[in-house]
Amino acid sequence: MGTPESKPDPAATAASRPLATTITLRQPYLLFLGDASHASRAKTALGIRDWAPETCAGQLRLADCAVDLELPELTPAQAAQQGIGSLLIGIAPIGGQFSESWLPTLFAAVEAGLDIVSGLHAKLGDVPGLADAAKARGVRLIDVRCPPPGLPVGSGRKRSGKRLLTVGTDCALGKKYTALALTRALRAQGIDADFRASGQTGIMISGTGIPMDAVISDFTAGAAECLSPDAAAGHWDIVEGQGSLFHPAYAGVTLGLVHGSQPDAMVLCHEPGRSHIWGYPDFPTPSLQTAIEEYERAARLTNPKARVVGIAFNTSMLDDTERAQLLADTERELGLPCFDPLKSPLDAVIRNILSL
Amino acid sequence: MGTPESKPDPAATAASRPLATTITLRQPYLLFLGDASHASRAKTALGIRDWAPETCAGQLRLADCAVDLELPELTPAQAAQQGIGSLLIGIAPIGGQFSESWLPTLFAAVEAGLDIVSGLHAKLGDVPGLADAAKARGVRLIDVRCPPPGLPVGSGRKRSGKRLLTVGTDCALGKKYTALALTRALRAQGIDADFRASGQTGIMISGTGIPMDAVISDFTAGAAECLSPDAAAGHWDIVEGQGSLFHPAYAGVTLGLVHGSQPDAMVLCHEPGRSHIWGYPDFPTPSLQTAIEEYERAARLTNPKARVVGIAFNTSMLDDTERAQLLADTERELGLPCFDPLKSPLDAVIRNILSL
Repeated sequence: MGTPESKPDPAATAASRPLATTITLRQPYLLFLGDASHASRAKTALGIRDWAPETCAGQLRLADCAVDLELPELTPAQAAQQGIGSLLIGIAPIGGQFSESWLPTLFAAVEAGLDIVSGLHAKLGDVPGLADAAKARGVRLIDVRCPPPGLPVGSGRKRSGKRLLTVGTDCALGKKYTALALTRALRAQGIDADFRASGQTGIMISGTGIPMDAVISDFTAGAAECLSPDAAAGHWDIVEGQGSLFHPAYAGVTLGLVHGSQPDAMVLCHEPGRSHIWGYPDFPTPSLQTAIEEYERAARLTNPKARVVGIAFNTSMLDDTERAQLLADTERELGLPCFDPLKSPLDAVIRNILSL
Repeated sequence: MGTPESKPDPAATAASRPLATTITLRQPYLLFLGDASHASRAKTALGIRDWAPETCAGQLRLADCAVDLELPELTPAQAAQQGIGSLLIGIAPIGGQFSESWLPTLFAAVEAGLDIVSGLHAKLGDVPGLADAAKARGVRLIDVRCPPPGLPVGSGRKRSGKRLLTVGTDCALGKKYTALALTRALRAQGIDADFRASGQTGIMISGTGIPMDAVISDFTAGAAECLSPDAAAGHWDIVEGQGSLFHPAYAGVTLGLVHGSQPDAMVLCHEPGRSHIWGYPDFPTPSLQTAIEEYERAARLTNPKARVVGIAFNTSMLDDTERAQLLADTERELGLPCFDPLKSPLDAVIRNILSL
């Protein structure tokens, strides 16, 4: 487990049990790259290729496409014939709209019997004629930014099984990748564990989940309860965190996710050197000690045993010596396993988790 | 100010400044009582008649209606002629749907040029033909459970003017009425103050506001920022609280409202004898001291000077002696003004607010 510099093995990402009140995608995917002029426009496809290669069965590119994932080039009809379930839009066009040039592909996918999966702001159902075509063909148009219908209000009822939630001093510093890496490491030890996605990229990777940031606020904790349902006593759900309790815009989402997840364990994610909330220069990031105290205080409303069991650093901007120094210093200071989920072994934090 | 047992004077409830990104209703109202068989089904109308009598210009009752608000009986056409702005649905039918028997009245209201205002779960736009009729006539169908479009993400930017937020140990124990009573008492002292509604009944009373529980979770703090915009230095916005930080389902909404409101002052609302969160027997209500500490801690993220300045009790189940004893004991214990907003003078808490 935890080979430095490695990406997770494929089997670690797909959820073993689909959930009832969640988005559930038909995998594997035909990745649609459109006319992407540069890899930076195909971040969705690249993320899925890296973290869930077993779900990537082919690519479909238009004439001007400059990105190549080195997957088999397939038409929608060929993809359907091979058992591929969905055409996944793997690019983010400027403005978030569907390009005119994509429409023949989208209709061909529906005609071939594929679902279409999109994370764009524009809705698939707003493409004229596409919803009718999908209905007639019996396939689904899935906007992963839209929560599933029927989410309940939180119950606060204690659920069976174990849960870990990744939490952060800020947004966008590695909560998803930390959860993916922990899931992989637990599975590598033979532990029954599932990654539970709370954001759109995570949902595409695992094929199931709920986009927490798009849930109506009254149902946030209830959605989090749906995301990690009752499970066997030894099972671990590894829940992808969102936002930060220290964020002036998003702390409410974070608190609902903390309460509904009822985490037994939390891993605190941080990026060294980030002195303030990204985009909010008047709001300093908290000290790690303060963050640990606040997350434990918040989580104990629904799980009195909740505790932080490790600290994940995004050290992409440090060299090896600096990284080793930072991890060792922080471990000594706080008495918790410290690691970079993409660069260091996870043995110590996994031991800590399994000791609960 | 604060005459015991009194209801607020009319001028204290309507907002002096309509807000940009909020629901804004056309007052006064023609209250529609349908075929209400009992006052308990007309709670919405009764609440508005009690708290904003100046907005109630008439009533419209069907043949079987057993409720009478003693307002002029008007047809929609008569109401429009008198300058009434909206037909307000003042009853809650079982199941939350529009009754077949109401439809002629709804269409007649549109035809007469009235807006229609509803707080039901069913949407006005789902009544076949009503949306088209409203569009043709140039009137609005307003579901006050639906947030206005265009809400931004929270900015955390400190705004001018002063703000008070009512907060609670639980839901449904007087946060709205406390905010209304404080607004009235401040205005009675000549202070420029506005009640800011965050729930549907409050919106109907004041004619403007945002239903916080229906906002997409990512925009909760941003919506709260819109609810109490920049104002003159001496102006007070009195913001109606929602939920409770100690509620396993709704704490996220509460935290977003606390952060976006940036309160200078908070009034903690409590119902004596309520030992656990309503409907959640496994979740005890916090001690008042704990609640004060947690709300101040949460609020200081966006306003480091935030503090609790008084405690509002809902003492409807106590007699006069018990009430006096409770208020005196708690004042001595916590060193804060204690009051029942419907039954005791507010002088001490108002002094505390104005000393900030």
